[in-house]
Amino acid sequence: RYFHFCKLPGRVMGIRLLRFTSVVIIVLLLVAGALTALLPNIKDDKMPNLKREPKIQSQSAVDSFTLIMQTYNRTDLLLKLLNHYQAIPHLHKVIVVWNNIGEKIPEEMWNSLGPHPVPVVFKVQTVNRMRNRLQNFPELETKAVLMMDDDTLVSAHDLAFAFSVWQQFPEHIVGFVPRKHISTPSGVYSYGSFELQNPGFGNGDQYSMVLIGAAFFHSGYLEDFQRQPEAVYALVDETQNCDDIAMNFLVAKHTGKPSGVFVKPVDIRNLEKDTNSGYSGMWHRAEHLLQRSYCVNKLVKIYDGMPLKYSNIMISQFGFPNYANHKNKM
Amino acid sequence: RYFHFCKLPGRVMGIRLLRFTSVVIIVLLLVAGALTALLPNIKDDKMPNLKREPKIQSQSAVDSFTLIMQTYNRTDLLLKLLNHYQAIPHLHKVIVVWNNIGEKIPEEMWNSLGPHPVPVVFKVQTVNRMRNRLQNFPELETKAVLMMDDDTLVSAHDLAFAFSVWQQFPEHIVGFVPRKHISTPSGVYSYGSFELQNPGFGNGDQYSMVLIGAAFFHSGYLEDFQRQPEAVYALVDETQNCDDIAMNFLVAKHTGKPSGVFVKPVDIRNLEKDTNSGYSGMWHRAEHLLQRSYCVNKLVKIYDGMPLKYSNIMISQFGFPNYANHKNKM
Repeated sequence: RYFHFCKLPGRVMGIRLLRFTSVVIIVLLLVAGALTALLPNIKDDKMPNLKREPKIQSQSAVDSFTLIMQTYNRTDLLLKLLNHYQAIPHLHKVIVVWNNIGEKIPEEMWNSLGPHPVPVVFKVQTVNRMRNRLQNFPELETKAVLMMDDDTLVSAHDLAFAFSVWQQFPEHIVGFVPRKHISTPSGVYSYGSFELQNPGFGNGDQYSMVLIGAAFFHSGYLEDFQRQPEAVYALVDETQNCDDIAMNFLVAKHTGKPSGVFVKPVDIRNLEKDTNSGYSGMWHRAEHLLQRSYCVNKLVKIYDGMPLKYSNIMISQFGFPNYANHKNKM
Repeated sequence: RYFHFCKLPGRVMGIRLLRFTSVVIIVLLLVAGALTALLPNIKDDKMPNLKREPKIQSQSAVDSFTLIMQTYNRTDLLLKLLNHYQAIPHLHKVIVVWNNIGEKIPEEMWNSLGPHPVPVVFKVQTVNRMRNRLQNFPELETKAVLMMDDDTLVSAHDLAFAFSVWQQFPEHIVGFVPRKHISTPSGVYSYGSFELQNPGFGNGDQYSMVLIGAAFFHSGYLEDFQRQPEAVYALVDETQNCDDIAMNFLVAKHTGKPSGVFVKPVDIRNLEKDTNSGYSGMWHRAEHLLQRSYCVNKLVKIYDGMPLKYSNIMISQFGFPNYANHKNKM
């Protein structure tokens, strides 16, 4: 008979245990969650923001890069360069940013002369803008981006080496064209190249930017570029210039280090004179350099400070082009 | 009356709850422990083990380095070099490892020709051993060590630049003399320099070691060297050689990366011929290179694997010695 009674506390105990267990499970989950949240992902810390959930990549995409080339009024050169870049090792895909508004893309002709080992995608634009090449293209599957101007040829060997350097410095712009800013006593910045010297540097030279017209950088920075202040886009559109300076500001701000790593090219050429269009690049415009100094000062205002840092590191390939390039007087 | 009976299951329930709770607490602790153990310390991962609690450093010691120079039978050269290195920027202290057993140190004469800006400490040794220079000297106050052979002169400019490079690669051996190992089809390794080529490298060359006879490295590695297998010390003592190869193994094992970063020197000289002692370095011995290949293979056995990794990065100073050293054909 007491069994009857005793089932009651028994059932009560069952319920308590049930509640208790569920509480315990929740606590466990909370603790696990909290501690897991503490785990830093070293890789990601170094990577641009939005890369924290990387896209799913085809196996081939992991150890390869995407070439992004913006073209305007130089279709003959473009095809010459596309042919050259078809033979570059580790090249996953080519994205051509077609700034010839209203003009037909040469896709038919390109395909008729195939087969081509590396796929080429033509991205037709509606406005001829400098910063069109800085979109976060959905066709982009690789972490590594090689951005090239449409009048510049870099040897396959230089590109293969620079890509291996980028893999060791993935948060930097790894490229072949260094530039610098100089702060003048007036507090106004000046933009220039090797001809511009800063007495403060002592022996040797320094650079604070690596131009993206011939450089590797992380595709995450294209995503980051979409989240910049409107004033940056306005500046780039107003000048049709300085998108590369803006990218160096972005990377320097992101890393707190010099934005670029300069790789000394063995063979880089400007093919501008080879085009039949006779079109010569915007950097020939009288105001080009003045504009770029103007942009540096504008960007310092927009970002409320000068993030660019100096570096004096120049990287070459050990034992190339000749095995003795590293031998010294010893 | 049934209460009497029912207290029993009640107590049972209490005990069960007690057991259950304690189990839960243990599980919680285990989960917490496991997850906490997963937290990596990024800084430490890059630094040599024992540097996790760095020594208290004088302010001057933070941005400076200590020169460690072992000397044997070349006191005239030693004094010449000590004079040269007195003028090196960022030099905090000089530690001379005195391997001239039973011979008086030239401290009196050195002091009589003072004052000298940088303090020099003579460490008198009781046995003439190659690895004497790899002690964890109590006089060492800086994180950065510059180790130099007593017959090698590197220009102040090269040292200043290499130190700035080391500050960017503190877990590597940053130096001026690259070497490599090659694995032969037989599985036996061979040691050599630029004259030794590996078909697998394709264009250019590679290196897998940077010799510590003219290099910067983290003082923590001297502490790590004290905790190596006895067989390593036996090998170095038996050959009076290979202490630098052992250090490259140690660093490569620690970092999982290439042990060294090669900085191309502008002016490095071997002053051996300048000594009146007529003593010429051990690397002239017929067996020197054979010994070093022997050491590589021995160390692979001792460490149960080949930790050395190849690099083809060569770093030079941008714009030095001439401002155009970075200009290209463009």
